[in-house]
Amino acid sequence: MWRATVFTLFPDMFPGPLGVSLAGEALARGLWSIAAHDIRAQGLGRHRAVDDTPAGGGPGMVIRADVLAAALDAGLEAGDARPRLLLSPRGAALTQARARSLSAGAGIVLVCGRFEGVDERVIAARGLEEISIGDYVLSGGEIAAMVVLDACVRLLPGVMGKEASGFEESFESGLLEYPHFTRPREWEGREIPEILLSGDHGRIKAWREEEALRITRERRPDLIAGLPAKGRKTS
Amino acid sequence: MWRATVFTLFPDMFPGPLGVSLAGEALARGLWSIAAHDIRAQGLGRHRAVDDTPAGGGPGMVIRADVLAAALDAGLEAGDARPRLLLSPRGAALTQARARSLSAGAGIVLVCGRFEGVDERVIAARGLEEISIGDYVLSGGEIAAMVVLDACVRLLPGVMGKEASGFEESFESGLLEYPHFTRPREWEGREIPEILLSGDHGRIKAWREEEALRITRERRPDLIAGLPAKGRKTS
Repeated sequence: MWRATVFTLFPDMFPGPLGVSLAGEALARGLWSIAAHDIRAQGLGRHRAVDDTPAGGGPGMVIRADVLAAALDAGLEAGDARPRLLLSPRGAALTQARARSLSAGAGIVLVCGRFEGVDERVIAARGLEEISIGDYVLSGGEIAAMVVLDACVRLLPGVMGKEASGFEESFESGLLEYPHFTRPREWEGREIPEILLSGDHGRIKAWREEEALRITRERRPDLIAGLPAKGRKTS
Repeated sequence: MWRATVFTLFPDMFPGPLGVSLAGEALARGLWSIAAHDIRAQGLGRHRAVDDTPAGGGPGMVIRADVLAAALDAGLEAGDARPRLLLSPRGAALTQARARSLSAGAGIVLVCGRFEGVDERVIAARGLEEISIGDYVLSGGEIAAMVVLDACVRLLPGVMGKEASGFEESFESGLLEYPHFTRPREWEGREIPEILLSGDHGRIKAWREEEALRITRERRPDLIAGLPAKGRKTS
């Protein structure tokens, strides 16, 4: 079973949306598990303080190294080799390739900071790896952790039907997806492209490849630059 | 009040994690509102079908244009000028600048597709704008919608204390954030950098700028390329 362990100040947020639909059904079927640990359980004093003001001054509060380390040490078994990811806009970008690699392992440990951050020393001392889901700021790491988990869980063996794997390969080809259409054939005067109704699988495949390439060129030329020669042709 | 309206097959997921902590307190204080509409309420027939197989064949199911359009038409008032965002890996990337611009408006409409996608015709016919939170695939648009909402809500007037705005400006300068430290001064043999304890605000500021630049150069050289000349210096 693929195991997720989350360290957060808001353990009740989990599994939350991950307890429903695809991820939730997989959770119920025992294909993965999630445990959410409250960092505040290791807080200091009567108020269980977890943070303090930044050394050198400045806005916000910083999560203390000793408190977060105590939470990790209490919540993880010695020798637990799962990747320990700290959600942070400073981290390396989550990619589909990374999600696939994480889903192929034993599970992940996710640490949800507050946006002001955690004391730098605990990152090094406990081997945390900073990971970012995108170039924007959230109020905390929790929803970002759900993004990482959802991206991984859907790739676990048995979670998606075999039929869904096609899209996956399409995305991982490095191109954005071609446009989709379904019934009715005509709607508000708009028709499904003729070729998709032709039954000619070769032409349909070629059309979809061309559309995927066209959309990627228009919207994300940066993705084209990373493709092998075939994808780069501009004809 | 900033208004969010979500169209989804899983309305019970909302507000979910957005009902807690910073976003949840702002929701309780009436600084924003959220309404989640069930697309299935406009589904067809006894089973309230919302999707059908892709024209031209292929894996998965596609949300029907007529059903989604009916849900939007029923759930939105005529003349509602809020941006209508469809969460999709094919979309333009969410950025902090976009979150700020969205938070400055009247609110947003979010449409959560299934990952196989929605019929292309409804995107054009109802003026949906595709937006992506990152280059990975999720099982649905719901958690991505929460990311967009959290990024916007924390920027609404009155949601964050004045003290938190410093970090914001730091991130929006285009650099990753400098390292944080807090008490205790020494922990597991690791000390807070001397300079942060010096009380010399000018040197602290210079150190932080240098660290932010160093971390950005190491981790995200792509961000440096977009900066004005000062940020680009390599000394």
